[in-house]
Amino acid sequence: MNYKDIREEAYEANMQLPKLGLVLFTFGNVSAVDRNKGVFAIKPSGVPYEELSPEKMVIVDFDANTVEGNLRPSSDTKTHAVLYKHWDSIGGIVHTHSTYGTAWAQSLRAIPIYGTTHADHLTVDIPCAPPMEDSMIKGNYEYETGFQIMNHLKAENLSYKEVEMILVGNHAPFTWGKTAAKAVYNSAVLETCAQMALLTEQIEGKVARMKDSLIRKHWERKHGEGAYYGQ
Amino acid sequence: MNYKDIREEAYEANMQLPKLGLVLFTFGNVSAVDRNKGVFAIKPSGVPYEELSPEKMVIVDFDANTVEGNLRPSSDTKTHAVLYKHWDSIGGIVHTHSTYGTAWAQSLRAIPIYGTTHADHLTVDIPCAPPMEDSMIKGNYEYETGFQIMNHLKAENLSYKEVEMILVGNHAPFTWGKTAAKAVYNSAVLETCAQMALLTEQIEGKVARMKDSLIRKHWERKHGEGAYYGQ
Amino acid sequence: MNYKDIREEAYEANMQLPKLGLVLFTFGNVSAVDRNKGVFAIKPSGVPYEELSPEKMVIVDFDANTVEGNLRPSSDTKTHAVLYKHWDSIGGIVHTHSTYGTAWAQSLRAIPIYGTTHADHLTVDIPCAPPMEDSMIKGNYEYETGFQIMNHLKAENLSYKEVEMILVGNHAPFTWGKTAAKAVYNSAVLETCAQMALLTEQIEGKVARMKDSLIRKHWERKHGEGAYYGQ
Amino acid sequence: MNYKDIREEAYEANMQLPKLGLVLFTFGNVSAVDRNKGVFAIKPSGVPYEELSPEKMVIVDFDANTVEGNLRPSSDTKTHAVLYKHWDSIGGIVHTHSTYGTAWAQSLRAIPIYGTTHADHLTVDIPCAPPMEDSMIKGNYEYETGFQIMNHLKAENLSYKEVEMILVGNHAPFTWGKTAAKAVYNSAVLETCAQMALLTEQIEGKVARMKDSLIRKHWERKHGEGAYYGQ
Repeated sequence: MNYKDIREEAYEANMQLPKLGLVLFTFGNVSAVDRNKGVFAIKPSGVPYEELSPEKMVIVDFDANTVEGNLRPSSDTKTHAVLYKHWDSIGGIVHTHSTYGTAWAQSLRAIPIYGTTHADHLTVDIPCAPPMEDSMIKGNYEYETGFQIMNHLKAENLSYKEVEMILVGNHAPFTWGKTAAKAVYNSAVLETCAQMALLTEQIEGKVARMKDSLIRKHWERKHGEGAYYGQ
Repeated sequence: MNYKDIREEAYEANMQLPKLGLVLFTFGNVSAVDRNKGVFAIKPSGVPYEELSPEKMVIVDFDANTVEGNLRPSSDTKTHAVLYKHWDSIGGIVHTHSTYGTAWAQSLRAIPIYGTTHADHLTVDIPCAPPMEDSMIKGNYEYETGFQIMNHLKAENLSYKEVEMILVGNHAPFTWGKTAAKAVYNSAVLETCAQMALLTEQIEGKVARMKDSLIRKHWERKHGEGAYYGQ
Repeated sequence: MNYKDIREEAYEANMQLPKLGLVLFTFGNVSAVDRNKGVFAIKPSGVPYEELSPEKMVIVDFDANTVEGNLRPSSDTKTHAVLYKHWDSIGGIVHTHSTYGTAWAQSLRAIPIYGTTHADHLTVDIPCAPPMEDSMIKGNYEYETGFQIMNHLKAENLSYKEVEMILVGNHAPFTWGKTAAKAVYNSAVLETCAQMALLTEQIEGKVARMKDSLIRKHWERKHGEGAYYGQ
Repeated sequence: MNYKDIREEAYEANMQLPKLGLVLFTFGNVSAVDRNKGVFAIKPSGVPYEELSPEKMVIVDFDANTVEGNLRPSSDTKTHAVLYKHWDSIGGIVHTHSTYGTAWAQSLRAIPIYGTTHADHLTVDIPCAPPMEDSMIKGNYEYETGFQIMNHLKAENLSYKEVEMILVGNHAPFTWGKTAAKAVYNSAVLETCAQMALLTEQIEGKVARMKDSLIRKHWERKHGEGAYYGQ
């Protein structure tokens, strides 16, 4: 089996999505990259999770050409390809239609930072890119989705190295990370922050974002120079 | 065993309802049709899912007469019969009281199309037929339910071939498809769209429907001439 | 083992509560009656469900005296005893703190009849008895709870034979039925109607109750002279 | 194995958190104290629950110094240490980011006492300590969190012996109890009260707290001199 490592990494990460309650049917996909070979392994399109195996992952290059595999890759493959091509330090990408994250995407709102669960992972609202211009939609849609994501991060002055998640307006979440497993972790974090933020607004309609000192503290605990979370 | 194929198809599809969290107790039923023989297999009324078997499915013709089986068919059998009789390209029908779909039905509102999860499956709001006239309710109720569904689709200028799901006001969802399995799939899609739409309105009260170009794009990806979703 | 039948009936019914997601820890209890012997079997107080057995059920008479058993019966035993004493056609009683039912009880509102899921089981709102007078609370509390339930049904002109469920204000649901299993079934029906009614009001704030003709039709389908639901 | 008892007690209690649905990934921790030895056992930081064992628990003294163990203790260890040092009758502490409890913490609101589920466990709203001053956040954060909890209870005239749970504003719940198992129990009680209180306000926006006579009655049933709940 060629590309064994990324096939297995992508397979294992894909199988986490149903376990974490992040997908219905095949509404999600994960990929894992091999930077040396310039390719990534991605879920085949429309294949149920219970039928997946490492062998069925499709190997694709950064221009979204299939390098190895008999199955058609995920219909979102071009979005993955664009992000791998432009963001050279990411190792995995996840797309889901998770319930709460998708609801925020449909509402066209960024997810406000209301508490430490959120601040443990990023110091700003989870951004929401607006829906694309019609020309982009009618053109090379999934390819343009990648650019829409990158452009919105830039417009908001955000780095993909610090903000590893985004909503695409009227669509759903995308997340990424150093590994496919970390990108899946981020998808679950996004979903729980999305649910908590909605509940928070339901409890107190005029709630304010948390204050900056507390945001910084929680971020630094996990990601700063003197980080002391984990082993 | 006569009618083996549709017995097994209906059985397997019925058993998916509890697995997908779409039914409490016996509040749901699935049927599968054999067009050549002019009959369909449907769940027996009030029998718990764990006690079902292919042999227990009841075989019924398009006038709702039992053709084979000792058990009484689902109390909704006439609705199924009417739809099979008039819609000659469907292969399966599902009725559930799934939580979110039923809540929309009870609110008498169509489910607005807010995102791509919805547009991947239909290009319009999920329609909600109004409750029937009293004369229809007091008359041949389940038979008239079938006509209420057909008439509402017509009134809204919708084709059952494109819109494979509907809410019946103050009642609950009905879905259909080329096969019983596809009809079950549509029931789960309806339920997730119903939940996401409610959450979307809770996050942003004045949210607008998604724009047409994006609706078309997602529909075409899966159902258009150049569809590229799945294998 | 004496009272074997009701011990087993009560045990089996109690074990359904966690399976149906109706209890956290020991926040619920079921009893089953033997009319000939004038006693009922009820869950022992505070014993986790996983440690229950038919032998551990406590046998109590209609004045709430323990007839057999080393364990203390449920703290709600007097409420059960009062209802068995006055309602001679019921066979089982259930008390839970199920999430949605309890929320309606805490809101002091009856659960409006918005759809057929509700009308399949009763033709009126699920009643909510007001909290008791202070004198009743400070007196023989659980005993008075039984009277509060009976009195509220009377005040609303409802028969316990048709309406097999009630909320007690600021407290939680009670249900009953011909058997303990039917009472448990009613607890799950109450919980799903409670959830659907809340969601319905969230979708459409000004929603109206369903119309009487449809209520009657669904009730008659299951409970009328010409009932045709089930086997 | 040294400190066998508290290692096992802390391990068992930690393993209850995922079973009760109170944690995502490693977002929670439990400790158990040995008063004679002046140490407690606590979850190691960032280690997944499925990889835990009694041996991996870290033994820490009341000044938060590690006494035994190769792994780094939970990042919240200083909060636990402060509470054990000042509250000499508690045996276990739990911190989670449970969904509904955290949403109330993020809304900066105490959880109102709306029903008997709540009054069975405490007679007042579940308190919510405000976020700390910036100087406390930038200083010895987790240590100050312990003081913030103690000071808020004092300011509200509450005793840690009666109120075994609190929300920390913009953060999440902390609970404690005579044992680690009781503290975990309290975390689940807090979460269910948090969910029910939100739903109650959604059903009836102007709902009032329950009346004092009923609060007292339910508290006394379980905790008063003549308590008659349990065995």
